[in-house]
Amino acid sequence: MTKASICTIGDEILIGQIVDTNSSAISRALEAVGVRVERMLSIGDNHDEIVSNLDKELNNSEIVICTGGLGPTRDDITKQALADLSGSRKFVENLEQARIVKDILTSRGLEVLESNRNQAMVPDTCEVIPNRNGTAPFMVFRFSPNRFGHPAVLYSLPGVPHEALSAIPLIINDIKEHFTLTDIYHRNLMVYGYAESALAKKIEAWEDSLPEDMHLAYLPNTLTGVKLRLSIYGGDRKEEEERIEEKFAQLHGILGDAIYSDAEDDLQHALKKLLAGTGKTVSAAESCTGGEISHLITSVPGSSEYYLGSVTSYAIAVKESVLGVPEETIEKFGVVSSEVAASMAEGVRRLTGSTYSVSTTGLAGPGGDGVLPEGTVWIGVSGPHGTVTQMRNYHNDRLRNIQRFAASALDMLRRYIIEDKNSIIC
Amino acid sequence: MTKASICTIGDEILIGQIVDTNSSAISRALEAVGVRVERMLSIGDNHDEIVSNLDKELNNSEIVICTGGLGPTRDDITKQALADLSGSRKFVENLEQARIVKDILTSRGLEVLESNRNQAMVPDTCEVIPNRNGTAPFMVFRFSPNRFGHPAVLYSLPGVPHEALSAIPLIINDIKEHFTLTDIYHRNLMVYGYAESALAKKIEAWEDSLPEDMHLAYLPNTLTGVKLRLSIYGGDRKEEEERIEEKFAQLHGILGDAIYSDAEDDLQHALKKLLAGTGKTVSAAESCTGGEISHLITSVPGSSEYYLGSVTSYAIAVKESVLGVPEETIEKFGVVSSEVAASMAEGVRRLTGSTYSVSTTGLAGPGGDGVLPEGTVWIGVSGPHGTVTQMRNYHNDRLRNIQRFAASALDMLRRYIIEDKNSIIC
Repeated sequence: MTKASICTIGDEILIGQIVDTNSSAISRALEAVGVRVERMLSIGDNHDEIVSNLDKELNNSEIVICTGGLGPTRDDITKQALADLSGSRKFVENLEQARIVKDILTSRGLEVLESNRNQAMVPDTCEVIPNRNGTAPFMVFRFSPNRFGHPAVLYSLPGVPHEALSAIPLIINDIKEHFTLTDIYHRNLMVYGYAESALAKKIEAWEDSLPEDMHLAYLPNTLTGVKLRLSIYGGDRKEEEERIEEKFAQLHGILGDAIYSDAEDDLQHALKKLLAGTGKTVSAAESCTGGEISHLITSVPGSSEYYLGSVTSYAIAVKESVLGVPEETIEKFGVVSSEVAASMAEGVRRLTGSTYSVSTTGLAGPGGDGVLPEGTVWIGVSGPHGTVTQMRNYHNDRLRNIQRFAASALDMLRRYIIEDKNSIIC
Repeated sequence: MTKASICTIGDEILIGQIVDTNSSAISRALEAVGVRVERMLSIGDNHDEIVSNLDKELNNSEIVICTGGLGPTRDDITKQALADLSGSRKFVENLEQARIVKDILTSRGLEVLESNRNQAMVPDTCEVIPNRNGTAPFMVFRFSPNRFGHPAVLYSLPGVPHEALSAIPLIINDIKEHFTLTDIYHRNLMVYGYAESALAKKIEAWEDSLPEDMHLAYLPNTLTGVKLRLSIYGGDRKEEEERIEEKFAQLHGILGDAIYSDAEDDLQHALKKLLAGTGKTVSAAESCTGGEISHLITSVPGSSEYYLGSVTSYAIAVKESVLGVPEETIEKFGVVSSEVAASMAEGVRRLTGSTYSVSTTGLAGPGGDGVLPEGTVWIGVSGPHGTVTQMRNYHNDRLRNIQRFAASALDMLRRYIIEDKNSIIC
């Protein structure tokens, strides 16, 4: 397989001011086309360090992608280092990037300064891919096979994440043009409701039946459950895709509704797919999740079509006065109880007139309530076929508990809506 | 300054499955005690790569911290690589870690397997710092100055973030014991309401007046505003702290209430400081922020003391029926208007009986409403001294707009409460 290194340049990463998210985005894109990332490296804004480290990486890998150090200020010295590494004697203006720089600054009502104009100046040893989202161009340096003993290319991208991300499809295209890559076929299935280890046990026999050339990966996430990724390297596209398809069809039989998507997805988008265009609506009554369910649902563009709103009833008085949870229910069963979860879900459904509703009441922590431990949540879902509740227990810190509660609630709502649809069809 | 390298080990980082957050947390902690991180490196679960890369890093740096590859499964081979790197001939059981492993598994109702027991076995060349949050111990390898030409120590931590984070204070203590470090004095001020460039302009004269040995850093963040960090390397603790104190006192004069904390902090914790113990309460009415304000407030432990709850009124009908926004107000001024923001804030305050309330109505995007552009928000704050509203405009994607709207709303609420307190005192 073609090998790659990723190198991020900038003191702000080394002092921990910034978490580097570019590298993982770039490596996912490379991996998807069959390029293996062997090393990731972060170094500071130091000319000699940049030159010597990139030289080493180009010795090891056919593809090196570096980000950062391309800003207009004095501490950004990547461009000069790349000029020296590639033996450039002069900088030339890239006219297309110069035009973009002018357009961007003019549209913001800013004057084009000397330092801005310099952004479009590049070493004469590189090719330019214009950057339409920023002032620093993407630069491509191709090295003769004699230099490193193998063909090698270096891509230089700005460190600003949205600019670096916008470059990824462009450099992937360039890589596909210039390298003969091993074809790779990936497919994902999103599963909610199983811990990673429990899922592995559940599908053990199926996993053992996978042919040698298929590789299965478990990718767990607090908010989205477990992503199962099946990959085949090499072979004929149509044939390999059919083989993966067949294996995934078996998994659908084993896991049923625990599978909520066969794309890279999350529960709030799965909810949108179930509700958009149906005229059905949802609402939420949140206690311990404190707005997170509502935030997740509304993070999806177009959610206003099916999402009416929510009540976050943190105080008991709000549960009673706004949601209409009877005082006696709270006194008799406690705030964190099946009965209160049910009453909250019914209350917000009545209040908003939604088709479905979901509710949470629990203990995100730190600390339990003396009876129930921290990490306990009661979830309620209400709809045309009545109200159901479930209890869940997690063992995380406050923020992760809130996320798990919210994801579980979205999943329970999703399953209710599916059952509701099925019962109408039957 | 003492130099350090951080090395993360694991295929899951190289294929982009995981974003490495350990490295930045570790480097912040090192930087705070005057250790300079010169390189960060990520490599795969490959024995020879691990040995040769760590050897190189130990040649360059006095301190190397590596995370990952310590799990109980076959693909985790860091421990064997470290044994070989350090010339260990045998593994010995660490009794304290063995007891912790047993306790953890027993408390989860799990059997202690051979693979679990192996977690407490370590190369005889290392010292162990027990890991109370997981099964793999923290290992410390100290190398004689002859080996690398300088004293060198290698710390090996598990890759699981909460375990790695829990190790940081312990290894910082160990580093302080074994190295003579340059003292470093940092102080932070949290500022909200200025873009980074506008803030730089506002405090330009002050910044120019800083003595040469003081270093100022701007650390901007969508949710928390700009963190200003002032640092001095070396010198006498009491004296340097007083000098920083004096400079920050001047900044308070320039920036006033835009400074919301002189610790590392966020707006929701600043709100807690203003409200806890006062008997005063808050509530929220959210439209475009969709629950994010409520989520931020309730992410703070103990927020139930002053936070009553919120209504997310995504649908117009909910604004009218639950919050009591008059239909005519919406028709006359539009949903995204000062009048609707005011009416929402007053509505939720009436509904919950809170002392203060905050509201948002706006366009998170994608797309505007034909009149107003995407990124527009009206924020309302209501309280004993009446209702105020403000408009803000941002130019980000949906999720970042939602975050900026929510942070602006929290900031406006915070300033209202401060003014309210002052007017009571006056």
